[in-house]
Amino acid sequence: MKSDPSKSNVLPAPLRGIVVPMITPLSDWDTLDAEGLERLLEHIIAGGVNALFILGTTGEGPSLSYRLRQEVIERTCEHVAGRVPVLVGITDTAFAESVSVACKAKEAGAQALVLAHPPYFPAAQPEILNYLEHLAPELPLPVFLYNMPSHTKLVFEPKTVRAAADIPGIVGLKDSSANMFYFHKVQMLLKDKPNFALLVGPEELLAETVLLGGHGGVNGGANMKPQLYVDLYNAAMSRDAKRINSLHDEVMEISGKIYCVGAYSSYLRGLKCALSCMGICSDALAEPFQPFGAKERQQIAGYVEELGMKK
Amino acid sequence: MKSDPSKSNVLPAPLRGIVVPMITPLSDWDTLDAEGLERLLEHIIAGGVNALFILGTTGEGPSLSYRLRQEVIERTCEHVAGRVPVLVGITDTAFAESVSVACKAKEAGAQALVLAHPPYFPAAQPEILNYLEHLAPELPLPVFLYNMPSHTKLVFEPKTVRAAADIPGIVGLKDSSANMFYFHKVQMLLKDKPNFALLVGPEELLAETVLLGGHGGVNGGANMKPQLYVDLYNAAMSRDAKRINSLHDEVMEISGKIYCVGAYSSYLRGLKCALSCMGICSDALAEPFQPFGAKERQQIAGYVEELGMKK
Amino acid sequence: MKSDPSKSNVLPAPLRGIVVPMITPLSDWDTLDAEGLERLLEHIIAGGVNALFILGTTGEGPSLSYRLRQEVIERTCEHVAGRVPVLVGITDTAFAESVSVACKAKEAGAQALVLAHPPYFPAAQPEILNYLEHLAPELPLPVFLYNMPSHTKLVFEPKTVRAAADIPGIVGLKDSSANMFYFHKVQMLLKDKPNFALLVGPEELLAETVLLGGHGGVNGGANMKPQLYVDLYNAAMSRDAKRINSLHDEVMEISGKIYCVGAYSSYLRGLKCALSCMGICSDALAEPFQPFGAKERQQIAGYVEELGMKK
Amino acid sequence: MKSDPSKSNVLPAPLRGIVVPMITPLSDWDTLDAEGLERLLEHIIAGGVNALFILGTTGEGPSLSYRLRQEVIERTCEHVAGRVPVLVGITDTAFAESVSVACKAKEAGAQALVLAHPPYFPAAQPEILNYLEHLAPELPLPVFLYNMPSHTKLVFEPKTVRAAADIPGIVGLKDSSANMFYFHKVQMLLKDKPNFALLVGPEELLAETVLLGGHGGVNGGANMKPQLYVDLYNAAMSRDAKRINSLHDEVMEISGKIYCVGAYSSYLRGLKCALSCMGICSDALAEPFQPFGAKERQQIAGYVEELGMKK
Repeated sequence: MKSDPSKSNVLPAPLRGIVVPMITPLSDWDTLDAEGLERLLEHIIAGGVNALFILGTTGEGPSLSYRLRQEVIERTCEHVAGRVPVLVGITDTAFAESVSVACKAKEAGAQALVLAHPPYFPAAQPEILNYLEHLAPELPLPVFLYNMPSHTKLVFEPKTVRAAADIPGIVGLKDSSANMFYFHKVQMLLKDKPNFALLVGPEELLAETVLLGGHGGVNGGANMKPQLYVDLYNAAMSRDAKRINSLHDEVMEISGKIYCVGAYSSYLRGLKCALSCMGICSDALAEPFQPFGAKERQQIAGYVEELGMKK
Repeated sequence: MKSDPSKSNVLPAPLRGIVVPMITPLSDWDTLDAEGLERLLEHIIAGGVNALFILGTTGEGPSLSYRLRQEVIERTCEHVAGRVPVLVGITDTAFAESVSVACKAKEAGAQALVLAHPPYFPAAQPEILNYLEHLAPELPLPVFLYNMPSHTKLVFEPKTVRAAADIPGIVGLKDSSANMFYFHKVQMLLKDKPNFALLVGPEELLAETVLLGGHGGVNGGANMKPQLYVDLYNAAMSRDAKRINSLHDEVMEISGKIYCVGAYSSYLRGLKCALSCMGICSDALAEPFQPFGAKERQQIAGYVEELGMKK
Repeated sequence: MKSDPSKSNVLPAPLRGIVVPMITPLSDWDTLDAEGLERLLEHIIAGGVNALFILGTTGEGPSLSYRLRQEVIERTCEHVAGRVPVLVGITDTAFAESVSVACKAKEAGAQALVLAHPPYFPAAQPEILNYLEHLAPELPLPVFLYNMPSHTKLVFEPKTVRAAADIPGIVGLKDSSANMFYFHKVQMLLKDKPNFALLVGPEELLAETVLLGGHGGVNGGANMKPQLYVDLYNAAMSRDAKRINSLHDEVMEISGKIYCVGAYSSYLRGLKCALSCMGICSDALAEPFQPFGAKERQQIAGYVEELGMKK
Repeated sequence: MKSDPSKSNVLPAPLRGIVVPMITPLSDWDTLDAEGLERLLEHIIAGGVNALFILGTTGEGPSLSYRLRQEVIERTCEHVAGRVPVLVGITDTAFAESVSVACKAKEAGAQALVLAHPPYFPAAQPEILNYLEHLAPELPLPVFLYNMPSHTKLVFEPKTVRAAADIPGIVGLKDSSANMFYFHKVQMLLKDKPNFALLVGPEELLAETVLLGGHGGVNGGANMKPQLYVDLYNAAMSRDAKRINSLHDEVMEISGKIYCVGAYSSYLRGLKCALSCMGICSDALAEPFQPFGAKERQQIAGYVEELGMKK
């Protein structure tokens, strides 16, 4: 399939709704599960989501070789073929490599970029703002900031987000801090920038985000059950209290089951294992992670059944 | 200069003494200051150090483009020409890129590798041990583990170090935790592996490390004043209490002055600024860092004078 | 005034609405500002709140001498005289002293207790559960758990809350973690205990808490403007989207102004300073805190004017 | 026994050598094991230690009722009868209660006080310095600062220690941070105050502390084997390298065995269990802790035998 400009891949301002942080289907740690990728894309797009975000945390982006990252970008953009906007994670310890991945994303036809702090070196807020001022002009596509303190150990402080929103090309924030106090502070500071997208990471906070004026969610569970999150977004937009509560409970149930098996790395391993039990793609993970063993897999398989996610 | 096999670049077992975590002289964020590099290498080697460690934290390794990392490896190995062993940092979020840098290090004639946890993803100890078991066989040179919790937010727990010491090719630990309790626990567990090198990161802990049986230090200050750290190592080896105290105080004074200017990123900026004031190389830093402004530079220049580091 | 049993001091199950974590008006670090206390009580009760919580974090409970804690309990209960339920903080490093304060609360006519982890010693979840099992039978009044990780550095994990909800006398949770993901997990686990109160600490999260089924908030801002929080609670209960957004914005504005002055301890100092500017009570704080100086006080005074809180 | 002024209970300046942070022998959570206390005191004093520190972290001070704290102070001072100086922990969330315990310590004949940050409220360094300036004049005995970040979550920053050293009555620092980098920074700043005692908490760091000019250690293991720590202190003072290494290894072995049993609170439970296996006192702990069960006790009993601590 070729990209078709008549389709809805134009990036809205602000971006609204459900963005799926796509897992990367792998057949082993350095090989794409290309058929799994196609099945997953069809499954997700069929759910009516608003955009796709590849090579993020859920996509294990930083763990993949650059060769593999490029392959994921190209195959995804080609297969999506403009049906939804594609956002590409470019977080990297090295400035130059972030630019390099960004250029590949542009070439392949992606619509936007997503950028967390460069991991490894602790940096102060003025350093981070400088970095954004230097990086943004080098990027060929609009960029979303990605606040991910659990992984980068740094925060885009509200004032830094406000200042960054004035840098041309920075068009939104994905906040995965799970801290709604932080999110509301950012909202207050951004009142004068209604086109700056404010999206929330944890799906467990989607309902309240939308109820209180946020633009949507970047929710991992939408890999498994995209329509659920789209429905919850819509219910929240229309203030349908009863429907919100019932869909929010369903989201919480998935979270409390699929993401809580095993003693560590339960989110990523649970999500990929569930997709494998659903027959969509392999459960292989990139180093340093390993898929679940038989015992945990059986537990996940039971939950997949129970939650009605079996295809 | 070509590498000369008659020189002392054979890696001892265990590696002992002073290893210099070399800064990377830059003329701008993505350009090597090649002349500065040569001056710095001569300055360091003249101090009688035991090995060189490039592309570590002090070398801003993770912030440099792969092109630049390769250039640093090649020029350093060529210029050192076997006079001391060269260790190369290969820490990366992606397994495949760590292997790739390792292969370039081997080709260029380096003697060993240094590896911290892949930054970004939190990983459990069993995952880290698995990762080391998978990675070590792919590496063409011996590897030192690099415990750096302030940057990776992960620890190689003592039991993990003990288990890793049985993996062929893993030959030592550089511990930058600044936690001597941890260091002594590791020493106890490694008593039966006398060839496994136990080196300490913070130069402020060099004296006690050697006094209590550690093998040496990987000390950033040795970029500026290599002989001081060599002297302190020797004094500690010969239990010369008076000399230890006086040299340790000098180390603490450098640390309390050069690394304590400015409100953030004081260590890296102070070190590079001091080397610039000493006429050795530029003070440019890789993104996301910036060199000191005039006020801080003046303060550092005063300290360089005061500490007798002016050449 | 004597306690009057015809009044509404019966503790509902679950407790719902706005609970005011009252500051303790002091004339100096160890002396009650008794007149300020009476003015504050009248101001708060006039706002239509559902309960009062004294000697919590906002009340500087742990910083006060036991003599003073007793005085606060007695004078508050006497002056409130059964118009609203009074909850008393009994958090203490020592088990026996928690029991002792609890008994004084009972004698004075209070309706319930509030208990955070004993600060100082880190304790594991099974230890905390044991502790609750041993403590609850010694307490003469119902008790609310108080999840306050920013101060105790410990969390009542969701499973611990669930287990604690089966201990007779434990009737609810005040969660001040500012982590709505945590709050929703607890809600899911407590679905079968509809009488167990789930209240949220930070007022910035009141709207979403109530919208998603929580029972109310324990909100410091209600010392200054009790009716605002009552109104927001009611708007959220009746799903009045427009009113929710406007009142939530007002809450965020107070938070972004009154609690953000000065470089440290801004919440407590700002709150007491504002009450002083409003003519309600002194701004003295218990050790180790000091009231704002003239510059910060002027800033707060301006905000009090701006926010229409001047009486 | 009465206090005998001819004995060595005069507090030296600086205090040097081994200070024993005594556990509190309990027969249940709120009852002193008075006979165990006497046996423990004789056991410790016979080891030749330089001072006793009661009601610290190891003594579970903050967990004990005030009644029990007073009993511990009185019985200890009476039984010690001036044979060694007695230091009393007065850490408390409430300023007034710290003063109250301090006065009881003075009355009972203790020689000094030990004070950590008031736990619970996070406080900034200027607040902490203010607090010390207000508190010190109220205290009837000299006071040692107690840096204990693992429990108070606050640090006496080096500059705060330096400023506090100028407050009359503040005579030393016990640093339990396990961070020798911090300790050496403090040493550098205190060079002009040779009478200000600098003692280290973790026994695993005793050797290096003394080798690099610190005054001694406050070491929990000295409850079990007081002479070992005294010997190590003396060996370090006389720079006897061979003896230092062998005694340091013995200290590390005790630490790696007695303090590493069970999944949580292993230090306190292990220490009290070992003392119980040695026939010195009961292993009861104050709330919220519980003694080991049979399985862990057996493990500790084996270690006590192995380490030659059986009397």
